[in-house]
Amino acid sequence: MKNNQKILIVGGVAGGASAAARLRRLDEHAEIVMFERGEYISFANCGLPYYIGGEIKEKAALTLQTPASFHARFRVDVRTFSEVTSIDATNKTVTVKNVKTGEAYTESYDKLILSTGAEPIKPNLGAEDSARVFTLRNIPDTYRIKEFIEQNNPKRAVVVGGGYIGVEMAENLHSAGLDVTIVEMANQVIAPLDYDMACDVHHHIESKGVKLLLGTAVKSITDNGSSLQIAYEGGEINTDMLIMAIGVKPESALAKNAGLALNERGFIVVNENMLTSNLDIYAVGDAVEVTDFVTGQKAAIPLAGPANKQGRIAADNICGIDSRYTGTQGSAILKVFDMTVATTGINEKTAKRLGMKYDKSFTYSASHASYYPGSVNMSIKIIFEPNTGKLLGAQVVGYDGVDKRCDVLATAIRAGMTAYDLTRLELCYAPPYSSAKDPVNMAGYVIENILTGKVKNFHWHDVKDLPRDGSVTLLDTRTTIEFENGSIDGFINIPLDSLRSRIHQLDKSKPVYVTCQVALRGYIAARILMQNGFDVYNLSGGYRLYHSIFS
Amino acid sequence: MKNNQKILIVGGVAGGASAAARLRRLDEHAEIVMFERGEYISFANCGLPYYIGGEIKEKAALTLQTPASFHARFRVDVRTFSEVTSIDATNKTVTVKNVKTGEAYTESYDKLILSTGAEPIKPNLGAEDSARVFTLRNIPDTYRIKEFIEQNNPKRAVVVGGGYIGVEMAENLHSAGLDVTIVEMANQVIAPLDYDMACDVHHHIESKGVKLLLGTAVKSITDNGSSLQIAYEGGEINTDMLIMAIGVKPESALAKNAGLALNERGFIVVNENMLTSNLDIYAVGDAVEVTDFVTGQKAAIPLAGPANKQGRIAADNICGIDSRYTGTQGSAILKVFDMTVATTGINEKTAKRLGMKYDKSFTYSASHASYYPGSVNMSIKIIFEPNTGKLLGAQVVGYDGVDKRCDVLATAIRAGMTAYDLTRLELCYAPPYSSAKDPVNMAGYVIENILTGKVKNFHWHDVKDLPRDGSVTLLDTRTTIEFENGSIDGFINIPLDSLRSRIHQLDKSKPVYVTCQVALRGYIAARILMQNGFDVYNLSGGYRLYHSIFS
Ligand SMILES: Cc1cc2nc3c(=O)[nH]c(=O)nc-3n(C[C@H](O)[C@H](O)[C@H](O)COP(=O)(O)OP(=O)(O)OC[C@H]3O[C@@H](n4cnc5c(N)ncnc54)[C@H](O)[C@@H]3O)c2cc1C
Ligand SMILES: Cc1cc2nc3c(=O)[nH]c(=O)nc-3n(C[C@H](O)[C@H](O)[C@H](O)COP(=O)(O)OP(=O)(O)OC[C@H]3O[C@@H](n4cnc5c(N)ncnc54)[C@H](O)[C@@H]3O)c2cc1C
Ligand SMILES: CC(C)(COP(=O)(O)OP(=O)(O)OC[C@H]1O[C@@H](n2cnc3c(N)ncnc32)[C@H](O)[C@@H]1OP(=O)(O)O)[C@@H](O)C(=O)NCCC(=O)NCCS
Ligand SMILES: CC(C)(COP(=O)(O)OP(=O)(O)OC[C@H]1O[C@@H](n2cnc3c(N)ncnc32)[C@H](O)[C@@H]1OP(=O)(O)O)[C@@H](O)C(=O)NCCC(=O)NCCS
Repeated sequence: MKNNQKILIVGGVAGGASAAARLRRLDEHAEIVMFERGEYISFANCGLPYYIGGEIKEKAALTLQTPASFHARFRVDVRTFSEVTSIDATNKTVTVKNVKTGEAYTESYDKLILSTGAEPIKPNLGAEDSARVFTLRNIPDTYRIKEFIEQNNPKRAVVVGGGYIGVEMAENLHSAGLDVTIVEMANQVIAPLDYDMACDVHHHIESKGVKLLLGTAVKSITDNGSSLQIAYEGGEINTDMLIMAIGVKPESALAKNAGLALNERGFIVVNENMLTSNLDIYAVGDAVEVTDFVTGQKAAIPLAGPANKQGRIAADNICGIDSRYTGTQGSAILKVFDMTVATTGINEKTAKRLGMKYDKSFTYSASHASYYPGSVNMSIKIIFEPNTGKLLGAQVVGYDGVDKRCDVLATAIRAGMTAYDLTRLELCYAPPYSSAKDPVNMAGYVIENILTGKVKNFHWHDVKDLPRDGSVTLLDTRTTIEFENGSIDGFINIPLDSLRSRIHQLDKSKPVYVTCQVALRGYIAARILMQNGFDVYNLSGGYRLYHSIFS
Repeated sequence: MKNNQKILIVGGVAGGASAAARLRRLDEHAEIVMFERGEYISFANCGLPYYIGGEIKEKAALTLQTPASFHARFRVDVRTFSEVTSIDATNKTVTVKNVKTGEAYTESYDKLILSTGAEPIKPNLGAEDSARVFTLRNIPDTYRIKEFIEQNNPKRAVVVGGGYIGVEMAENLHSAGLDVTIVEMANQVIAPLDYDMACDVHHHIESKGVKLLLGTAVKSITDNGSSLQIAYEGGEINTDMLIMAIGVKPESALAKNAGLALNERGFIVVNENMLTSNLDIYAVGDAVEVTDFVTGQKAAIPLAGPANKQGRIAADNICGIDSRYTGTQGSAILKVFDMTVATTGINEKTAKRLGMKYDKSFTYSASHASYYPGSVNMSIKIIFEPNTGKLLGAQVVGYDGVDKRCDVLATAIRAGMTAYDLTRLELCYAPPYSSAKDPVNMAGYVIENILTGKVKNFHWHDVKDLPRDGSVTLLDTRTTIEFENGSIDGFINIPLDSLRSRIHQLDKSKPVYVTCQVALRGYIAARILMQNGFDVYNLSGGYRLYHSIFS
């Protein structure tokens, strides 16, 4: 590390500002310049939807630092309205354009960090220039949306895309009083969830009065002056405003033009030290390709935690510390009205796509001891390796305590733990917080029982193919009242607590497919029947999951 | 595993009932008898205080199973009011006394499980038989306390002992309208906390109107008919009722008389399979000695999670499955009015007592993004190995999100993680749930900086010994207003953002002891000063922690 190195940073938000702050702490004498094209640095991208919805009230809350405060604290030369338009990697200079005046100048560097982020994808569907069509990435975008609502008093909004930002925007536009429809091409919202776990989310969103048009690809958008007309296969809707939230693409033109290696999707290629193909240029954040921690494959996972971590790692390396980024596992979380949706690691879709050997478990557990007021259930799906029980991914959907269980599972995945390890986790228990067997322990037990052959499962997607010709027994072990309130076509009812006395009614030569509400009683029934010589399969997730998917 | 084995279980609550249920699932044909001295089985010990305080309203909520429901579901022969009075280990029989009729009989076994629990310690201080003196272990104890309050309308209560149960009882008696005093021999409540972390809890308890008499050993208790008189060194208080909650001792007389190996403190010795010194007798729960997961030393840690887990492990082993209990790390949590207190692994007191090499860190982080409404700070103390950074223990005190961070740390400790690993944890972030750098990541960074020499710390207990003779610089880097609102004796004020311009005012030949509010600005100041040639120490935990301890 030489003295008075000069470091330029392009992009002044999550990755860039984090890198700048760490650089200064490591090197009091470096010359650090941070360029930001926009007016604001260090802003809370993730808070923007909540300002629109009114949850966050103060504009000032959205910016964690100003150029002045950042300079006062870190002596970083922050240049806003300054777009870096090109990099001369040979001469180690960048060209900077003052976006207000159009003036340009060059600046030399010893080391350069790119944290240029990703920009919303804007498909060519028409009405691109309409004042009613918005994307959301930064503070000006946010003000634009908020002002449009305040000034035009729109009644209806369409959000195209049901990802994290789309769903957050739908909730916040709904909070702002609009009648909101989410239009999503896939058959589900929140792609990191599997379809089976998304169904509860769909019900919840709809229960709040937000409409969902799933499996619906927008074909065109037309601004007819007083509203927008959105056409899709089989129909069209009108709206007063539209948020385009179908994903982001890396801002990597600068890197590309400088000759840095990009992958085929345009993300900047970096090594574990966040170094690009040029020895003096680092890149971090949404614009870079990462390694998926679970699969080892290359991926792009645009999240703030990784961007912040990578910024710090790049700074370390520039200052001679061999810090390494060990991959992104995609831990992410979303508030959906009263619900919380959290994911970590891979989902079943990914496991399938990659042809991985996997199995899955569904559990449904109380957020805390059910005898203590306020307990609510959460649904947990875990993807694991069938032989070793190694954890590959988890999805948690529910209310209170979802974030906790997903973070514990994220930590377990990071540690390379198996489902057996989950049974041994010693988590904090008192009635207001958990149960003596925490939902995570419980998921461990359930998987252990699958792995060790204590029970064989079948799944919701197998139900339709079960023979209804009497060649197998379809058995629902819930109480009579539960059964009468709704059951799966073709299933007969023997409540669990009567099973032992009525077991003679069942034909031992036929396989038994058993279910109950959440699969616990089905499991107990399976144990009873198996030990009486039956071939038994238990419906994972039980009637609750089945009903959530098919209702 | 032979067919139709006969298994007897002594104790029908956490460990016993868990063992019985798992046994039945594993072995449909075994004969299983569960003896319980009291009237109730499967009850929620941990919920009892909340029934007294009125938070839990229904008596029925306290029992998860009745003998009848347990028999219906698990075909376990549950015998309540049945005390096992002796074990004949040679002939493999137990003697059972019907505590209602006094009748006795013997019952043979192939395998025996003891889950007899632990009973409250009742010191000989007088008034043992007073109707105003209570302990709390089971449902009859609970009703007794509740009825005493309802019938006698006491105004004042004293809780002797500031452990988990003592503090829970204090809160719940306060909820029930009593004027409560906690009398505790140690200088702090909640022994798994270190003193420095307990101070916030003391302030919170007192702010709710509960009195704390710390460092106060009760010498005698006298029932003078209309009230109790409690004498201690230097004073006495009167009260209408008293809860004795100074800890528990194992119920191991049965095991002892059967010749099973006990440790010197009377806990039953078991191996990893929960097998006692007798090959046909297992023991689980509060009555057994465990291995401390962190130190490897023998310990006794009476908690419901371990008891439930151990019950399942004993059942597994009886059914031929080699399940092992891998030790208890003491993950525990407590609601203290609005506050949450959680601990896992060892504390500093233990590290000291065992002569372990350790270091510690204090951090103070927002429960979620501070720009999103409702964020509150939590205090985290971590004990770690000074060379490797291996995590040894954590204490978290605060409000929202405390349970999550302690469970993540408990998982990290279970995985054998280091502080470096904490920096790499990828936890779920959206503004309502966390920050892009979660408090656990942040603690990792702070420890990393200690381990790699980026900063040297001093601690609150070092402050009094700092020379005030001008031989060292005592520097507070908070703003002028913060400083004027209260500072540590002898410290001068240079706000961090003026430090670079005023650095010439400081004498490079003198060590600088720097502080701020939570140690973040102090750390930045330390980095500035160190790189300008100063020898610098940062006050870990900052003025906030110092003030909590000394105010
Ligand atoms: C509405 C919204 C909600 C989100 N919610 C969450 C969430 O809840 N959780 C989560 O983990 N993540 C969330 N994210 C994603 C998260 O904000 C990003 O992953 C993170 O900000 C990426 O950091 P970055 O530094 O790579 O890019 P950014 O933070 O986007 O910063 C890039 C900056 O570089 C500037 N720039 C680009 N090119 C140039 C140039 N040539 N010259 C000068 N400046 C340039 C841009 O103007 C921009 O300000 C959200 C994002 C949005 C938009
Ligand atoms: C008020 C209170 C609050 C608590 N809160 C928490 C908490 O929040 N979190 C936590 O983790 N832990 C908590 N605990 C501790 C937890 O309840 C115990 O760790 C757990 O119950 C121990 O299980 P066990 O099976 O060993 O003993 P127990 O659950 O106590 O069961 C032992 C049973 O054995 C019976 N018995 C004993 N001897 C005989 C005999 N000879 N014959 C027949 N029966 C016999 C007893 O009557 C008793 O019912 C709390 C305990 C109490 C009392
Ligand atoms: C605001 C911003 C510049 C902060 O950068 P930062 O100074 O690295 O971050 P923090 O203020 O969280 O401080 C972290 C540093 O303080 C240290 N620290 C934190 N608490 C401490 C304590 N109690 N004692 C000592 N040090 C402490 C940490 O170790 C870390 O220093 P290090 O990186 O040198 O190890 C940057 O994160 C940013 O711009 N964020 C907004 C944009 C964004 O992230 N958007 C996406 C999410 S909405
Ligand atoms: C009530 C009590 C008898 C329950 O025992 P239990 O049947 O083992 O426990 P649960 O009802 O939680 O069920 C756990 C079992 O269901 C299985 N299970 C849970 N959810 C499932 C699901 N969705 N699908 C399939 N199986 C499931 C688990 O795998 C486990 O079975 P296993 O041990 O064979 O692997 C016992 O815990 C008890 O008496 N508790 C009260 C006393 C107490 O614990 N006090 C201290 C705390 S207040």
